[in-house]
Amino acid sequence: MEFIEEIASLRDQISFDGTIDIPEDFDNVVIAGMGGSGIAGRIFQEWFTKKPVVLVNSYDIPEFVSKRTLFIAISYSGNTEETIHATLEAAKKGAKIRGISSGGKLAEIIDNTLIIPRSFQPRSAVGFLTVPLLRSFGLVNEEEIAVTKNLLGEEDQHTQEYQQIANDIFSQNKIPVIFGIPGLSSVAYRWKTQFNENAKVLAYSSSFPELNHNDTMALENTYRKGEFYFMVLRTKAVRKEISARIGITSKLCKIDMKGIEGEGNSLFSNIFTLIHKGDYISYFLAKMRGVDPKDVTIIESLKKEIGETK
Amino acid sequence: MEFIEEIASLRDQISFDGTIDIPEDFDNVVIAGMGGSGIAGRIFQEWFTKKPVVLVNSYDIPEFVSKRTLFIAISYSGNTEETIHATLEAAKKGAKIRGISSGGKLAEIIDNTLIIPRSFQPRSAVGFLTVPLLRSFGLVNEEEIAVTKNLLGEEDQHTQEYQQIANDIFSQNKIPVIFGIPGLSSVAYRWKTQFNENAKVLAYSSSFPELNHNDTMALENTYRKGEFYFMVLRTKAVRKEISARIGITSKLCKIDMKGIEGEGNSLFSNIFTLIHKGDYISYFLAKMRGVDPKDVTIIESLKKEIGETK
Repeated sequence: MEFIEEIASLRDQISFDGTIDIPEDFDNVVIAGMGGSGIAGRIFQEWFTKKPVVLVNSYDIPEFVSKRTLFIAISYSGNTEETIHATLEAAKKGAKIRGISSGGKLAEIIDNTLIIPRSFQPRSAVGFLTVPLLRSFGLVNEEEIAVTKNLLGEEDQHTQEYQQIANDIFSQNKIPVIFGIPGLSSVAYRWKTQFNENAKVLAYSSSFPELNHNDTMALENTYRKGEFYFMVLRTKAVRKEISARIGITSKLCKIDMKGIEGEGNSLFSNIFTLIHKGDYISYFLAKMRGVDPKDVTIIESLKKEIGETK
Repeated sequence: MEFIEEIASLRDQISFDGTIDIPEDFDNVVIAGMGGSGIAGRIFQEWFTKKPVVLVNSYDIPEFVSKRTLFIAISYSGNTEETIHATLEAAKKGAKIRGISSGGKLAEIIDNTLIIPRSFQPRSAVGFLTVPLLRSFGLVNEEEIAVTKNLLGEEDQHTQEYQQIANDIFSQNKIPVIFGIPGLSSVAYRWKTQFNENAKVLAYSSSFPELNHNDTMALENTYRKGEFYFMVLRTKAVRKEISARIGITSKLCKIDMKGIEGEGNSLFSNIFTLIHKGDYISYFLAKMRGVDPKDVTIIESLKKEIGETK
């Protein structure tokens, strides 16, 4: 599959109807996942706040994990070293374990693994990886999914805007910096990782209002100021304090921030249309740079070498 | 007080013996804090894993907050808008509320506020803000504190190395990128914020092993590659998988990463000596740039303007 087809498949991915079985009674949720698979947990953590949600982005699990913990392991390949290790630790502690994976070891060691379709790059499977979590916890309904499918289809037809942004970044080799707002910090991080993996450029994300307590002091006066490309990911409706912060930051720090709005009225549609825009921009930037957006040879080599050191 | 004296005061700050009263029974911990005050919560969250710890870096609190939640509000000034708002929300839900502050509104609205010394920049009070948390939860003992005091004193006497690193960054206007390892991600973030606020330069942090799933693809081939200054914060002893990742990343991505080790054998001494090194480096970078490390006029103007929009 061409990489741009993987991107366009998001439209179909979000109506994938797989779910994981949520137990009736648990005290907290721990989600283990790295990189492209970890994004699902980040989106979920920002959205679902009825119970404490703690993310594991490494080998070890928190001490509190117990029989009262719902532990969800997410690994597209099913073979991510850190996630496997964390899952085995959680099993020792008697946690209620669920998995989301296209197969691999994870599907072997967890009885309750939701199997999602294979043959994508993990980062391109963001719909398959994330929607089952949102669906299982009742965070999204069929109408929102249907509306979002249409919105994603429209984005697929009108990619000129994304090419233009990619070109603005490319023509001056700017460093992408993506600012999120509460509810979209995980999406800003997703954009950063897509710039990294697709376009092979360093990129960074941070979020309002936290960035007003540190980045702000650098934004006005940093050296290389003209070499960064600042973007703000937002919904149309934004809490007034955050909206004021965006405007005042731009004014006081004398920086342009490219505002990029999600589509539709639901949090679901905003998250997925913004993910889609970032996917396209990083894809077009890759093409302009003459690099293969699909290639992740270095990550694969690194995994191999780490395996060999054992 | 000169800003460098504020930095050097860390040695004395860490033996501050104030504590907050930890209730016998609670299900989870929520810590609200922004910027320089938020660092305390980040360090604590990475260290204390006996209960789920969730950070609030904005206005709103998670839905799960209840009478069974220990809610800790940290604001050096006591007047941070986001933290005050979150604290009032937590009070409505009946959470067990504690505060750490030098005064301000927070001390008025929370009965159980630990009052810490005034007249520092919030980011320079990192010892006063963090040690009470660690002490109250029994994470550090007097011997570790005494050893760390000595180590910090030695660092104060030998700052040439930090001047050299600042000079390496300054002489080519490099963008500082700080990589952490598990247990030190919060310290890597602290360095980023100190580069922002003290030296007024944009800087970014990420952590092993997560960065091996995204940044890695950019590190080899990104444009502007020579314009970044990569650092790895680490302890002497590092889990073998992480140690392998550091070496292999450097080799495969063909980048130099300046390794910076914490001092002593405890996690406490490693965290605080690394914080101290970063404080000095960002201070010297400010001096080389001819900017005032203490100045945070823009953050103050922003807070004022936001207040006025209401």
